[in-house]
Amino acid sequence: MVVQQIKKIWQEQVPFNQVLGIRITEFNHQLAEIRFAWQPQLVGNPIKQILHGGVTASALDFAGGVVCAASIIERLELDKLSAEAIHESLAKMGTIDLRTDFLRPGRGKEFITTAKIIRSGNKVAVARMEMHNELGDHIAFGTGTYMVG
Amino acid sequence: MVVQQIKKIWQEQVPFNQVLGIRITEFNHQLAEIRFAWQPQLVGNPIKQILHGGVTASALDFAGGVVCAASIIERLELDKLSAEAIHESLAKMGTIDLRTDFLRPGRGKEFITTAKIIRSGNKVAVARMEMHNELGDHIAFGTGTYMVG
Amino acid sequence: MVVQQIKKIWQEQVPFNQVLGIRITEFNHQLAEIRFAWQPQLVGNPIKQILHGGVTASALDFAGGVVCAASIIERLELDKLSAEAIHESLAKMGTIDLRTDFLRPGRGKEFITTAKIIRSGNKVAVARMEMHNELGDHIAFGTGTYMVG
Amino acid sequence: MVVQQIKKIWQEQVPFNQVLGIRITEFNHQLAEIRFAWQPQLVGNPIKQILHGGVTASALDFAGGVVCAASIIERLELDKLSAEAIHESLAKMGTIDLRTDFLRPGRGKEFITTAKIIRSGNKVAVARMEMHNELGDHIAFGTGTYMVG
Repeated sequence: MVVQQIKKIWQEQVPFNQVLGIRITEFNHQLAEIRFAWQPQLVGNPIKQILHGGVTASALDFAGGVVCAASIIERLELDKLSAEAIHESLAKMGTIDLRTDFLRPGRGKEFITTAKIIRSGNKVAVARMEMHNELGDHIAFGTGTYMVG
Repeated sequence: MVVQQIKKIWQEQVPFNQVLGIRITEFNHQLAEIRFAWQPQLVGNPIKQILHGGVTASALDFAGGVVCAASIIERLELDKLSAEAIHESLAKMGTIDLRTDFLRPGRGKEFITTAKIIRSGNKVAVARMEMHNELGDHIAFGTGTYMVG
Repeated sequence: MVVQQIKKIWQEQVPFNQVLGIRITEFNHQLAEIRFAWQPQLVGNPIKQILHGGVTASALDFAGGVVCAASIIERLELDKLSAEAIHESLAKMGTIDLRTDFLRPGRGKEFITTAKIIRSGNKVAVARMEMHNELGDHIAFGTGTYMVG
Repeated sequence: MVVQQIKKIWQEQVPFNQVLGIRITEFNHQLAEIRFAWQPQLVGNPIKQILHGGVTASALDFAGGVVCAASIIERLELDKLSAEAIHESLAKMGTIDLRTDFLRPGRGKEFITTAKIIRSGNKVAVARMEMHNELGDHIAFGTGTYMVG
């Protein structure tokens, strides 16, 4: 399955995702979910030991990218479902803009970020993201506009 | 100078700023500037070797925070300019929301992010940020709303 | 009831709300809902006969303001629940920033905008808004940051 | 000149622009400028007599649209510069998302909104907008992402 291959590449060959320790735990066009564990090096406030805002924004941005990628793959015609064709389609992808709403301090052991598509198109997609910790505390909301074609 | 002390803490004791390699090169209430060098671990796209969008968002968020901190210090009355009073004031600071506009791929050797305040208040400040590389290519714009009191 | 009085003022004495024909149909701290009917003068594209984007943004902004106002009133202590005290509290309110995501063309006979608070505080609140038409088509999303104290 | 014709259509045949009293005073791919005068019906706060936030958002959104339209026309090849071809190209245009930053209360006699393109592409463009009053007071900033092809 090509999706498995992309998942592997994104987790193991994207250097900054490895710094964050991100794993893709759901990867389809209706929902993407990524997870990462708290690590000392992700801290932005050493006194309060909470996540750097940039870590939160990174997770939101990436989760939105994953759901957009799944949506692109979903739309490919069967005869274009070769690994090469998929990689070519995904190479055009990129974030145009991202809004992050920080709701609560980034405290927790594990952080779960989900993404759904709210506007779908051939050229541009818009996704909404949410980040919670393992206790269900709602840490951040995100809205991202992505180039998809 | 307390400002030097804060600069040192933020550069040397904020773990995620160290991951990014961020240095504060300008720190006053009219302009903040931070810089970091390209590093393999900051890459988001291994084929194109460009920055992860989250790295860009992190730099924008932090630069906005620096200019807001400078603005808070500027407003403190003289008799509150003890290190303790300053740290107490800064402890209340936090990002409420951040918009990142990705303009060009994050290519370069060094990335320079500047921030200016566009709305100033006792409780909330809004800052605009720009990120360029060492060649002057404009990589991203940011707009952030910060709690400052 | 003071809430009824505020509702009346906002519907009948705010000139631009009257241009839009806005009615407040739900006004509590958990949910605000406002409605307005399609009118020829709200059109932004005369060929397609769809709403002007600014009409959509206006409705989202106002709906967020209504839920924030309800939240401010909810927090007032009983002894401050005089009409005067409420008006004084609401006078401090204002929108800091607003993000509008346009999902579908603004077609329909009636437009229903709802708002919920996602971040609540003494000084700043963040609300999320949605606009649908009478058929349930999802026309727009909004996220607004409001000064509330 | 087709540009004159479009300007005329947008000013005289877009109903909501007529409610706002908007005139296009600059219309090229480097800068768009629109103006409107204060009118009692544009007020959002009857006590303070300031503009409704939605009026400000409407002006920002439209100014961004004008500069994007100018940019689309600029890119058309000479042989496509018929009125029909231009209208066809502009018909695909639309706002994807808009961020409005409210800096100061909307007070003044005349409101001048300018827009510049910060990201230009075949499919998507991003514009930044500013609104001032006739005294030069800076009332709002905007950032909009537009579908352009």
